[in-house]
Amino acid sequence: MSRVWNFSAGPAALPEEVLRQAAEEMLDWHGAGMGVMEMSHRGKEFVSIAEAAEADLRELLAVPANYRVLFMQGGAIAENAIIPLNLMGGKGTADYVLTGSWSVKSHKEAGRYGRVHVAASAEASGYTTVPALESWQLSADPAYLFTCTNETIGGVEYPFEPDLARIGRAGVPVVADMSSHILSRVIDVAKYGLIFGGAQKNIGPAGLTIVIVREDLLGRAMPHCPSAFDYKTVAEAGSMYNTPPTYAIYVAGLVFQWLRRQGGVAAIEARNVAKARLLYDYLDGSGFYENRVDPACRSRMNVPFFLRDESLNDAFLAGAKEAGLVQLKGHKSVGGMRASIYNAMPIEGVAALVDYMKAFAARHG
Amino acid sequence: MSRVWNFSAGPAALPEEVLRQAAEEMLDWHGAGMGVMEMSHRGKEFVSIAEAAEADLRELLAVPANYRVLFMQGGAIAENAIIPLNLMGGKGTADYVLTGSWSVKSHKEAGRYGRVHVAASAEASGYTTVPALESWQLSADPAYLFTCTNETIGGVEYPFEPDLARIGRAGVPVVADMSSHILSRVIDVAKYGLIFGGAQKNIGPAGLTIVIVREDLLGRAMPHCPSAFDYKTVAEAGSMYNTPPTYAIYVAGLVFQWLRRQGGVAAIEARNVAKARLLYDYLDGSGFYENRVDPACRSRMNVPFFLRDESLNDAFLAGAKEAGLVQLKGHKSVGGMRASIYNAMPIEGVAALVDYMKAFAARHG
Repeated sequence: MSRVWNFSAGPAALPEEVLRQAAEEMLDWHGAGMGVMEMSHRGKEFVSIAEAAEADLRELLAVPANYRVLFMQGGAIAENAIIPLNLMGGKGTADYVLTGSWSVKSHKEAGRYGRVHVAASAEASGYTTVPALESWQLSADPAYLFTCTNETIGGVEYPFEPDLARIGRAGVPVVADMSSHILSRVIDVAKYGLIFGGAQKNIGPAGLTIVIVREDLLGRAMPHCPSAFDYKTVAEAGSMYNTPPTYAIYVAGLVFQWLRRQGGVAAIEARNVAKARLLYDYLDGSGFYENRVDPACRSRMNVPFFLRDESLNDAFLAGAKEAGLVQLKGHKSVGGMRASIYNAMPIEGVAALVDYMKAFAARHG
Repeated sequence: MSRVWNFSAGPAALPEEVLRQAAEEMLDWHGAGMGVMEMSHRGKEFVSIAEAAEADLRELLAVPANYRVLFMQGGAIAENAIIPLNLMGGKGTADYVLTGSWSVKSHKEAGRYGRVHVAASAEASGYTTVPALESWQLSADPAYLFTCTNETIGGVEYPFEPDLARIGRAGVPVVADMSSHILSRVIDVAKYGLIFGGAQKNIGPAGLTIVIVREDLLGRAMPHCPSAFDYKTVAEAGSMYNTPPTYAIYVAGLVFQWLRRQGGVAAIEARNVAKARLLYDYLDGSGFYENRVDPACRSRMNVPFFLRDESLNDAFLAGAKEAGLVQLKGHKSVGGMRASIYNAMPIEGVAALVDYMKAFAARHG
């Protein structure tokens, strides 16, 4: 068996030791005589797995006691509807900050449930930056303000936390789609009303959505919000109103344990900074490749880049694959290349990519 | 490692050879250098996995060409809302046949989206039977008629297919929740407008919902149906409008392959008949245990039973666990015991249960 360096934007590489443990426990979890996939979600074995996963996540992100952690389904795209269905009802208006494909998509879906107001947009820059917090123009009384704090496709990451207290609007709950950078850097959960993310980038298997929601935001769902997606219903049932995606929760729990063994979020953040610096520094100095994102807002997780001579794209990808570097093709809406370097990607993988890029540039430059 | 006989109602036992293959391929699927959980859902490796899973499911159930197979999320409880959100809009009324906990729950949720009409109900029997098709009273022009063809909690299974042509209402699409008996018996898909089920009983891991829908029912969603749950949107995107639960689809595909190796649905049905007969025949003749469901409507998959002396319940469960027979406690709304004997439970497991029950009865009778 030879493992590749997998730069997929998601579903994405997982830590090898997590996969090894999952394989070992597949037929028999801790002497239970059955695998995790076979366990009743209400049995004591699985309940202990889910409780440990939640406890570890709470510790990793220092989630305050007045926030609930929900294990849901449908990913960020489903949440684009589920969030307005839960939060928009009373006030009827929500504000959105547009920084790329994902926040634009979220804004569009929310418009089906009420009035949407664009508080700030980076469209004029081609979505290569994050508008300064001081420039945001909120509406009079929005139900929430929506942000996507890391745009997976554009490779744009907030260099600040969207702390509305700084612009005198502390009363507006901030919603943040953190799908592609949750657990990659230290955040202050208390600055947000709701944090969510699909698990398949920085956490675990596709099919699990993590929602961290402040308790006072529960119980506001519109009448036509499906019961299975009503945050209050889900919270009161301990994420077991419907059968949760048990195996995905188990694998996510293994990833949380792995992250704790790595030293937690601050430690992994330092490594993510080093990984991103290695790649961006090479890109900027290469003269052969380029990244077009505002340097202050470059994502540490998703690094889109272009060959200055795009006629070499196919040769670049073919050579990369031969060198064991896969999933480097850029999103079809952007073109070029993209290297996603989530928590599970060690610096050795980034170094292998940079080495290949250097050799390719030397051959073709 | 010692595997138990797992009678969980779901998530439930899976075939050992499926789990072994999943474990072996966890770090490296077919030489790809990555596991299935790590694959981009749009990469050629995973696309081939999803296509094979769909093709095998279509072959197993002989799904006609004018039906679409969708891989969705949220389980049957989410579908209780998603179905009316998709189908109820135009006509505004839907009919329900009530045969137990699950159809009652489905009926209640649908009432949030339009008018619901009870076409038939087994409430008077304590939900121990299925009302004869000839007795159903449909409304004038319902959007669909909803059935739950196997009630997991009550252990009641339709002994007939709800073929509305037999009562002169062929134009009304039949919706069937088959969560807990899909693939356990031969069905005629063409008799239904929509078949759905959570995977975690007879197919695979929790977190995957199978929807089989006739094409003419696509494109009828209400304006506030979330895009991720609009059948037309999902169908047009090949179940990849949002990131699908990739690993669950992979395991489901392994189960479909296993089922083909068993000889397909007709062959497994014969074994399911034999398993159910072994257990019910013993129950009926024991004088010590009893099943209270109308014999014509007893489920082959979920067998609730009671000890005539219920003060022995705890001793029964404790002894069963010692004998390696687990998850036999009945649903809290019913009490007593329940043995779920899905496709993956071999007759040896049922025989082991009957042997234990005999020995227990002999000790305590």
